Amino acid sequence: MEQIDAVTRLIASYKKLPGIGNKTAERLAYATLGFSREELEAFAYSLKNVEENVHLCPKCHMPIDSEKCPVCDDPSRDHGKLLVVTDAKNILSFERGKYRGLYFVLAGNLSAVKGIGPNEIGVPELKQRVADGKISEVIVACSSTMDGELTAKYIATVLEDTGMKITRLAYGLPVGADLEYVDERTIERAFSARTDMKGEE
Amino acid sequence: MEQIDAVTRLIASYKKLPGIGNKTAERLAYATLGFSREELEAFAYSLKNVEENVHLCPKCHMPIDSEKCPVCDDPSRDHGKLLVVTDAKNILSFERGKYRGLYFVLAGNLSAVKGIGPNEIGVPELKQRVADGKISEVIVACSSTMDGELTAKYIATVLEDTGMKITRLAYGLPVGADLEYVDERTIERAFSARTDMKGEE
Repeated sequence: MEQIDAVTRLIASYKKLPGIGNKTAERLAYATLGFSREELEAFAYSLKNVEENVHLCPKCHMPIDSEKCPVCDDPSRDHGKLLVVTDAKNILSFERGKYRGLYFVLAGNLSAVKGIGPNEIGVPELKQRVADGKISEVIVACSSTMDGELTAKYIATVLEDTGMKITRLAYGLPVGADLEYVDERTIERAFSARTDMKGEE
Repeated sequence: MEQIDAVTRLIASYKKLPGIGNKTAERLAYATLGFSREELEAFAYSLKNVEENVHLCPKCHMPIDSEKCPVCDDPSRDHGKLLVVTDAKNILSFERGKYRGLYFVLAGNLSAVKGIGPNEIGVPELKQRVADGKISEVIVACSSTMDGELTAKYIATVLEDTGMKITRLAYGLPVGADLEYVDERTIERAFSARTDMKGEE
C-alpha cells in the first residue's frame, strides 16, 4: 500500500516551509488529518486570504492586507527615520521595542555563496526610497551574521553619497542574559563599545 | 502597528499542529507570505481535499481518500493477521517493513494521566472487528513508552477470551522510542521475532 494521495499532497506543501524536512512534514500531514472541519476550513481560508489580499506596500515593501500601509500612511509616526530590515517578520520585534519610525524591507541578505546581489534584494529601490522622502536617518538592522554584516556595510556604502545619517544597531549583551551564556564575540563587541556610567540616567 | 490580520490567521492555524509553538508558527506564517500563487493554491487545495475526501475506513479506521480501503479490500493480503497500531502514520513503517496483513488503528494510547480510557481509543470496535472476521492472529504494535505498554497489555487482556493468538513485536525496538523514529530494518527484525503475549506477566 502506498501513502494515500491526500497525505502526499499535504507533505509536499509542508515541505515548502523552511526547516520542515520529510519526517516533520509527514508528522504534520497526519496531524492535519485529525483536524476538525472548521480547523481545515480556517486553515485553507488563511492561505486563500494570503493569495487574494496580501501584497507588498510599494513604499516599504512590507506585506500588508489593506489598501493603506499601517506604517507608511500613519501620520503620527516619525517620517524622518527609516529602519532597514532584511526580513519582514523582524518588524514586529521593533514595534514591540517601541520604534515609531518607518521601515524598508529588503528581500534578504546579500550572499556571495548563493549568488544573491543588490538587485535581487532591492537595494536600488531602497536608494530610490531614501532619495524621495523626508528621511533624515537610515538605521540599518541586519542580522549579525556574516551575510548580514556584508549587507549592512554595502548599504552604508551605497547611501554614502546622500550625505544622510546612517546608523546601525549597537552590539552588546542581550538584556537579561546571564554572562555565562553569552558568546565570546558578543562579549568582545560589548567590551569595546562599553559606555561611561557617569551621567547615565 | 499590529500584526496584519492575514498573518494572525496563519499563525492560529499553524499553532494547531503538534510541536509548533508561537515563535515557530510566526516563522512559518511569514514564510507562507513568500509562497507563490501556485504554492498557496496547492496548499489550500490539499487542506480542502482532506476535508472533502478523507474519511476513516469503517473496518480498519485508517484515514483513506477512496471508496475502497487499499488494505482491507485488497484480496492479495493476508486476511488472517491483524496488526493493531495507535497511530495511523505508523502503518507506513510496517508497509516499508514488508508486512502484508491487515491493520486496526486505535485513536492513541490509553492514558491515566490524560484520562483516556478504552472507549475513547476504540477498544470496543477492535473487539468487534476481531470477533467478526477471519482473523487468526492479532499483533499488538504499540510504542514502547509507558502508555504504549499499558495499552498493549490491556488489549491482550480484553482479547484473551477470544482464544486468539495474540502477539506483540519483539524487543529489539529501542526502549522508550517512538515508533515513528524507528528505522525499517529494526521494524522488520522486531516483526519476525514477535512474541506470544499469553502467559506473559
